Amino acid sequence: MIGVFDSGFGGLTVLNSLFEALPAYDYLFLADSARAPYGARSPDVINDFTLESVEWLFEQGCTTVILACNTSSARALRNIQQLHLPRHRPHHRVLGVVRPSVEALIGLPPGTIPGETPPSSASGTVAVLATESTVTSDSYGIELRKLAPSLTLIQQACPLWVPLVEAGELSGPGAEFFLQRALTPVLERPEPPQRILLGCTHFPLLLPALRRLIPPGIEILDQGALVATRFADWLARHPEHESKLTRHGSRRFATTDDPAWFAARGERMLGHAFTAERARLRPILPTPSEDHRPPNALRR
Amino acid sequence: MIGVFDSGFGGLTVLNSLFEALPAYDYLFLADSARAPYGARSPDVINDFTLESVEWLFEQGCTTVILACNTSSARALRNIQQLHLPRHRPHHRVLGVVRPSVEALIGLPPGTIPGETPPSSASGTVAVLATESTVTSDSYGIELRKLAPSLTLIQQACPLWVPLVEAGELSGPGAEFFLQRALTPVLERPEPPQRILLGCTHFPLLLPALRRLIPPGIEILDQGALVATRFADWLARHPEHESKLTRHGSRRFATTDDPAWFAARGERMLGHAFTAERARLRPILPTPSEDHRPPNALRR
Repeated sequence: MIGVFDSGFGGLTVLNSLFEALPAYDYLFLADSARAPYGARSPDVINDFTLESVEWLFEQGCTTVILACNTSSARALRNIQQLHLPRHRPHHRVLGVVRPSVEALIGLPPGTIPGETPPSSASGTVAVLATESTVTSDSYGIELRKLAPSLTLIQQACPLWVPLVEAGELSGPGAEFFLQRALTPVLERPEPPQRILLGCTHFPLLLPALRRLIPPGIEILDQGALVATRFADWLARHPEHESKLTRHGSRRFATTDDPAWFAARGERMLGHAFTAERARLRPILPTPSEDHRPPNALRR
Repeated sequence: MIGVFDSGFGGLTVLNSLFEALPAYDYLFLADSARAPYGARSPDVINDFTLESVEWLFEQGCTTVILACNTSSARALRNIQQLHLPRHRPHHRVLGVVRPSVEALIGLPPGTIPGETPPSSASGTVAVLATESTVTSDSYGIELRKLAPSLTLIQQACPLWVPLVEAGELSGPGAEFFLQRALTPVLERPEPPQRILLGCTHFPLLLPALRRLIPPGIEILDQGALVATRFADWLARHPEHESKLTRHGSRRFATTDDPAWFAARGERMLGHAFTAERARLRPILPTPSEDHRPPNALRR
């Protein structure tokens, strides 16, 4: 199965794009909605919660997992890829949304590998709108400087956008005040961005309101669609992982909160009704050797 | 020690009132900030998380625990008092904030016991502003109907108020839009309330903005002060529990998130700097007999 993880409901928007692009595969979606949102939590906690969720997906039979959560991709993915998988799960893969999103922001083809291809000569300005934790992690900046060092990146934290979406406040004067509050420092730059990425899976639900506030000359990137396209490309380039995935078109949904509660609230994000099951995650206790990993290098 | 629990930072406002009213006791404050806020989670999850937190406080040496969280008091306290304590902790006590708040809303002296004293003849209208989960639980309604059946209670859910406080958005057009949105159905009743209780520990930080929006003839009840006053009275009436509490004036702070992260963000709520420690909670697995408890009666 393909595992898809998000802290909350938002990842259902990415899942929808995956269903459209790659309908034949079997999917298991997990939302850690009992502990969402992650965007303002500490890096250590985001790392622990994400790893517990990924391990649960592995135990259910997923061999490739997509972190549809930007905060998890920004805060936990490097740890999982560089420490956890080589040691405990060498044949499994975990992919994030930051890297494909940066490729799309730059306008690069999928799968560009830093060091193997020359950096893009793209110049100008692009912007990422994201949670506080994603911005503070500078994950988008780190990837972008490797792939297109002459491109200027604006990273803007958007406090309250996730709570607005979760409360169903997608338009109106209150919502637009907080949308404008985060957009103003981006749009009023001397050199405003050519492209804006919505770097949080909740934000696509704010698109109608955002389109009214962002000038039409600025492209707004839909993360769900670009992640699905680039994941399809990744599968084509990695037959050793693609061949492990079953193809019965099955779709399972799991949550750490009450399943009926989750399904009732998630229906709007997915676009149709579904039933969910309860996932009980096990705490991951650090092994002694993992306690000695360089804290600043990998647990930013 | 006296244990004080809240899902997040908000309980520090109650803790401050306890320090003022009862400075001699030893306190241990626990915030489950890695999983806050609780206000929109399912009843089962709130119950589990609260019980894990209470058990951690017991293990640290607390014999009396105050649930400073309205959502936990509304959703988990009955389960803990009626099922968990008699079975596992017969000599420990857990108290909530709903009952003392209802007494204060009615204007009753502390410790009024339903069935032993005749119901209050108070009439008129009062209001509680709270999270979605607290309102849905009807905990304020249940207590109020026992103590003052002829009093009319307005219960108003205030979505986004907790995220506004956590984002530091305490005033301005955006915040006031969402304050007004919840206040309008309360204030525009044919019979507006004589008293309004802020039934969430985060809300006192919105008081300056709320005072501008609520007519001066309506009394706004400060939950921290009333909980501290009524807890002092409870201690005086329960020497068998009061005598177990140590009195060295010590104050410990614990969080399930990163301690430095929590202390930096909690300073504004407490009014002064503090250091915190990390609490690692253990999942409470239901015993077979507990699985058969009446689900609707006790796990609403």
